[in-house]
Amino acid sequence: MTSTVLGLEAEPWLTVGDRSFTSRLIVGIEQYADPAIVGEVLSASGADVFITTYDLESEHRSLLLSDLDQQIDLSELLWIGTTSFARSAEAAMRTAEHLREAFGLDIIKLDVRGDDNAPDHAGTLLAAERLIADGFSVLPFVRPDPAVVNALQGLGCVAVRLMASPVASYRGVENPSAMRDCIESLRVPSIVEGGIGAVSHVCAAMEMGATAVLVNTMIARAAKPAMMASAVRRALDAAVLARSDHA
Amino acid sequence: MTSTVLGLEAEPWLTVGDRSFTSRLIVGIEQYADPAIVGEVLSASGADVFITTYDLESEHRSLLLSDLDQQIDLSELLWIGTTSFARSAEAAMRTAEHLREAFGLDIIKLDVRGDDNAPDHAGTLLAAERLIADGFSVLPFVRPDPAVVNALQGLGCVAVRLMASPVASYRGVENPSAMRDCIESLRVPSIVEGGIGAVSHVCAAMEMGATAVLVNTMIARAAKPAMMASAVRRALDAAVLARSDHA
Repeated sequence: MTSTVLGLEAEPWLTVGDRSFTSRLIVGIEQYADPAIVGEVLSASGADVFITTYDLESEHRSLLLSDLDQQIDLSELLWIGTTSFARSAEAAMRTAEHLREAFGLDIIKLDVRGDDNAPDHAGTLLAAERLIADGFSVLPFVRPDPAVVNALQGLGCVAVRLMASPVASYRGVENPSAMRDCIESLRVPSIVEGGIGAVSHVCAAMEMGATAVLVNTMIARAAKPAMMASAVRRALDAAVLARSDHA
Repeated sequence: MTSTVLGLEAEPWLTVGDRSFTSRLIVGIEQYADPAIVGEVLSASGADVFITTYDLESEHRSLLLSDLDQQIDLSELLWIGTTSFARSAEAAMRTAEHLREAFGLDIIKLDVRGDDNAPDHAGTLLAAERLIADGFSVLPFVRPDPAVVNALQGLGCVAVRLMASPVASYRGVENPSAMRDCIESLRVPSIVEGGIGAVSHVCAAMEMGATAVLVNTMIARAAKPAMMASAVRRALDAAVLARSDHA
């Protein structure tokens, strides 16, 4: 899928094997009950990544791929897996293995969160190391802590997802200087995620130097998710355009 | 000029006599040397207001209307005057009189600034009162000071322009709580202006409840002003769309 902003042909910002991430907006899709809305949100957002979940405990409602396939041209999207329900390194690793066995996915959006739903840094580092050793390409989620971020980069993560503020908090980037430092210290792409609750937060994250932004709850809980996805995409495009003036 | 955002037909946010302001982005155009660029910037911004200056002292370079008319369909735009070069209430009033005599303009973007280029509140209040008594519709520029803002509203100003941060400072809204308070206290439209230096600032101003945003230096000093105007417009559209979800 090719995307353009005002005639600027977008270049991939991350390539893993023969698969490329081009859209700088990624949307989470695990909170939806209606496959038609997932299709509308993906389309309005311009996202080119499709995030597939696997719930080891079957505690979370999730849409069936067979239903989604009616609404979305899944072949147009880059599939990645997520461990967002995992509460331990071990659960994350088992989830990743299931995703590889079931769907052939080997790019993993790695989440290991504690009971407070915040990233568990020790568990994330352990799971990242094991999954990379096991052949996965890993995109871990952590707070903007320079030591942790550098350790993940050293392990060979293909990108690092940096928490703006607690998931679903709508507070935006709470610590801009730590965020900027982490982004600057990374040689791999940085994805700002968590707590993005306003279009100004999307622009601000990009202005801090983020490579991409992942938005989930703000769109999923909107009265009109597709409209909100379109708003977020416009904000992101605005920031990309503005940034290209300084490039 | 009608504008739409994703199928939302934009309603005028301010009507003065038979003239309507619909675009929520206003761009200053007095810093340009090339009329072709003014045309490109106005087009890319979607602005529907054309701001005409008159320099009593002839100290400032300004483009000739005859040159601009080659580049822009001036009949499509709502013309207003500005006193942005005035350094006293008296100079502002004389400028407004000249603008009415020369161009028939009676909607005035009122600026009375001190030597520090910041709004002179006493001079602004005086000029606003006199100009309104003289039949002008006045849009004054002040800091977000509740007492001053309420006084201007009491005088009958059709809208109030609230300073985000010093002109050309690129610092965005420096005092969000004062800005929010002033916007909430106004029954007339609020325009956030001054110091807007990033697309995130445009979104943030709208998220604080602004009716419209005026951007000048950020676009005029960009390497590619029309591209930056397009970026700013996308950011504003993003905020309008997002806000409509909560409406």
